Amino acid sequence: MYKKPLIVLNFKTYSESMGEKAVLMAKYCQEVSIESGVNIISCPQTPDIFRVASAVKIPVFAQHIDSAGAGSFTGHITADCVRSNGAKGTLINHSERRVLLSEIDSAIQASRKAGLKTIVCTNNIAVTSAAAALLPDFVAVEPPELIGSRIPVSKANPEIVSGSVEAVKKINPKVKVLCGAGISTGDDVASAIELGTVGVLLASGVIKAKDPRAALFDLVKKI
Amino acid sequence: MYKKPLIVLNFKTYSESMGEKAVLMAKYCQEVSIESGVNIISCPQTPDIFRVASAVKIPVFAQHIDSAGAGSFTGHITADCVRSNGAKGTLINHSERRVLLSEIDSAIQASRKAGLKTIVCTNNIAVTSAAAALLPDFVAVEPPELIGSRIPVSKANPEIVSGSVEAVKKINPKVKVLCGAGISTGDDVASAIELGTVGVLLASGVIKAKDPRAALFDLVKKI
Amino acid sequence: MYKKPLIVLNFKTYSESMGEKAVLMAKYCQEVSIESGVNIISCPQTPDIFRVASAVKIPVFAQHIDSAGAGSFTGHITADCVRSNGAKGTLINHSERRVLLSEIDSAIQASRKAGLKTIVCTNNIAVTSAAAALLPDFVAVEPPELIGSRIPVSKANPEIVSGSVEAVKKINPKVKVLCGAGISTGDDVASAIELGTVGVLLASGVIKAKDPRAALFDLVKKI
Amino acid sequence: MYKKPLIVLNFKTYSESMGEKAVLMAKYCQEVSIESGVNIISCPQTPDIFRVASAVKIPVFAQHIDSAGAGSFTGHITADCVRSNGAKGTLINHSERRVLLSEIDSAIQASRKAGLKTIVCTNNIAVTSAAAALLPDFVAVEPPELIGSRIPVSKANPEIVSGSVEAVKKINPKVKVLCGAGISTGDDVASAIELGTVGVLLASGVIKAKDPRAALFDLVKKI
Repeated sequence: MYKKPLIVLNFKTYSESMGEKAVLMAKYCQEVSIESGVNIISCPQTPDIFRVASAVKIPVFAQHIDSAGAGSFTGHITADCVRSNGAKGTLINHSERRVLLSEIDSAIQASRKAGLKTIVCTNNIAVTSAAAALLPDFVAVEPPELIGSRIPVSKANPEIVSGSVEAVKKINPKVKVLCGAGISTGDDVASAIELGTVGVLLASGVIKAKDPRAALFDLVKKI
Repeated sequence: MYKKPLIVLNFKTYSESMGEKAVLMAKYCQEVSIESGVNIISCPQTPDIFRVASAVKIPVFAQHIDSAGAGSFTGHITADCVRSNGAKGTLINHSERRVLLSEIDSAIQASRKAGLKTIVCTNNIAVTSAAAALLPDFVAVEPPELIGSRIPVSKANPEIVSGSVEAVKKINPKVKVLCGAGISTGDDVASAIELGTVGVLLASGVIKAKDPRAALFDLVKKI
Repeated sequence: MYKKPLIVLNFKTYSESMGEKAVLMAKYCQEVSIESGVNIISCPQTPDIFRVASAVKIPVFAQHIDSAGAGSFTGHITADCVRSNGAKGTLINHSERRVLLSEIDSAIQASRKAGLKTIVCTNNIAVTSAAAALLPDFVAVEPPELIGSRIPVSKANPEIVSGSVEAVKKINPKVKVLCGAGISTGDDVASAIELGTVGVLLASGVIKAKDPRAALFDLVKKI
Repeated sequence: MYKKPLIVLNFKTYSESMGEKAVLMAKYCQEVSIESGVNIISCPQTPDIFRVASAVKIPVFAQHIDSAGAGSFTGHITADCVRSNGAKGTLINHSERRVLLSEIDSAIQASRKAGLKTIVCTNNIAVTSAAAALLPDFVAVEPPELIGSRIPVSKANPEIVSGSVEAVKKINPKVKVLCGAGISTGDDVASAIELGTVGVLLASGVIKAKDPRAALFDLVKKI
């Protein structure tokens, strides 16, 4: 399912990718994914998961889950509930939604039980190593200062990407590495892959583009 | 819309009220609401809001929202997004999901802009007063030690209920008072209303009942 | 003890007011307090409380306490412990250390039992009203966007100050109002008092001044 | 400094180890340490650090630090400040004060710069591995369900201890492993060391003992 280069599109809470626009954005992702053969994952806001997942066949991931399970946990986002609404995976510990170390572990375990793939976001090589030790499916290293910039991490700080790839290999080679922050072009994706990652995590580079569909096509052109 | 006695049913993250079962539970609420003329609000898990709200005409509330708006707030639950998925209101600051004072204020403001009604949960008379000063639509006082028990707050601690009603009247008489914790029968509802509240907030008393539909009918029998 | 105009000096975690420098800064406060008759309260970092409180006779307040009491609460700051190290009061809910609504209430209660005065910080009139409903000794309204600026709240936004004074009067006239953010001169203090407050909360205006002792003398010159 | 078996005594917020009693408790630790040659570290409440560290020559550790440095961080506990008050190290991420993954990393880095040793607490083998990847001086594995019990982790769950020792060896053999939870006797310490740890972390077993000094002597008798 996730063999080819992977593009993870984080819809954040942008108005351009909420509600019915979330469905449209996911359909663009699906169109580009089918035409290019590149895996594209959509991460809509939590309340949008059901209608997005009902409208497309490409995988939909949550942006966050809590570690709570069934029970007295009002307001918590459970792995089981996002799964039953069609999500196939989830981001965990995004820089805009950091999580306690012990809760990252619990959330990964809850995801595994529920059949959700996990992408744990990290901010440097040491934290990437720590996250990899918890055995998620993916880690996504994103230097926070570059998020939302147009300066791609793969150019601004290639060492953090290649260093993360190496560090994860030592901890557990089954964990795959993504990188993010400042990604907006096909060149950025290509250099991310050259640095040893399996793909990228991005948001504004597509969502805030004048033509998101065209931006998606540009992303996959070199793969 | 909320003139008659009000019953707010919190689905928590119970497996008995998740996914398709959340839809079913909300349909029971609708049936009982129509037959009895009592307002019943369903509060499903966040990812379930869309399908529940699409399936029933009675109001659906979120269990929690964050104060974040549109933008770079990955994993946050925005008022706009739950609204666009069909929610008509939200719980805020439930005892299982406590919130910073300043964020309660921001969440109430965001809800008002988005057209969501707000129910701020509190744990004692002083905190009820504080919450009322932020001008939500409702406050719901729930002594945490009674939540999930079968000992109704209206019997175990009627002073906290009547005291909250009085305190809120002084702060702002437009804010309506609910009470919760240990509520499971029509008697509990009746005594809550005698104490000056406009209704109750409950969860396990219905959701964990052998026959939730019957439990709902029992709740409204004395109103 | 707190009859005259009150100046609360927050040492934050500035290096200029840490360790032995915290003791020196508190001694400046004491000197100016004695000469001017104005109450000045020092708020050093938590680990510095003991040596600052041992070195001066003017009141020393903590910058934050948790709501936990004696027991299994590793790493929490208890009212009893800061009291037994010489603190006479504490800030609660500073904009750099926001607290859950229910924990503000518990922290005020714990402070009262331990004999600590409480100053609850707030960010707007509604939140000031809410804080006042919890019956602390003081509320200190500080618009976050002006904190650390040299634009005094009393000039940039006098309505938030006078509005807070009025709102608190309605909730409970025993609660006294301070204001903060951008305060650095005697004029700022004078206009804060004209707007109905009993004094000010400030930090960088004194701590980061070339001559903090002179800055303190300037603050009290118009009172 | 930390060559011999190590006993880390967490004073928590117990009344039996606060204020002047914290000083007394640390003096017992010192007496037993000198007589036995076993390293004993005292972890008093943050406001007590200065007077405890001024009264004894054995190392004093903080129970928690935040990742913030010098600046506008009201109410945060900085590495520099606890260091300047005499602490030689700190616990991080105790089960009663869990921390965000990225903040554990920042706190370790801040500690290293300030010259503080670090003990990161963990709850299972995976989290221990993750913590070790951040290169603290020590990790201390403590199954939360056994904390405060009289059932020693070394008997109830020896696999979590030996598994942690093995896992850390693979990640980075320089990181030393402690274990905790339910430890109260010399036998417990001996079996912890047999399982490959360098020592133990404990609290109530000594602090709540009728005779803490005797309890400390009992702890070291088999080493």
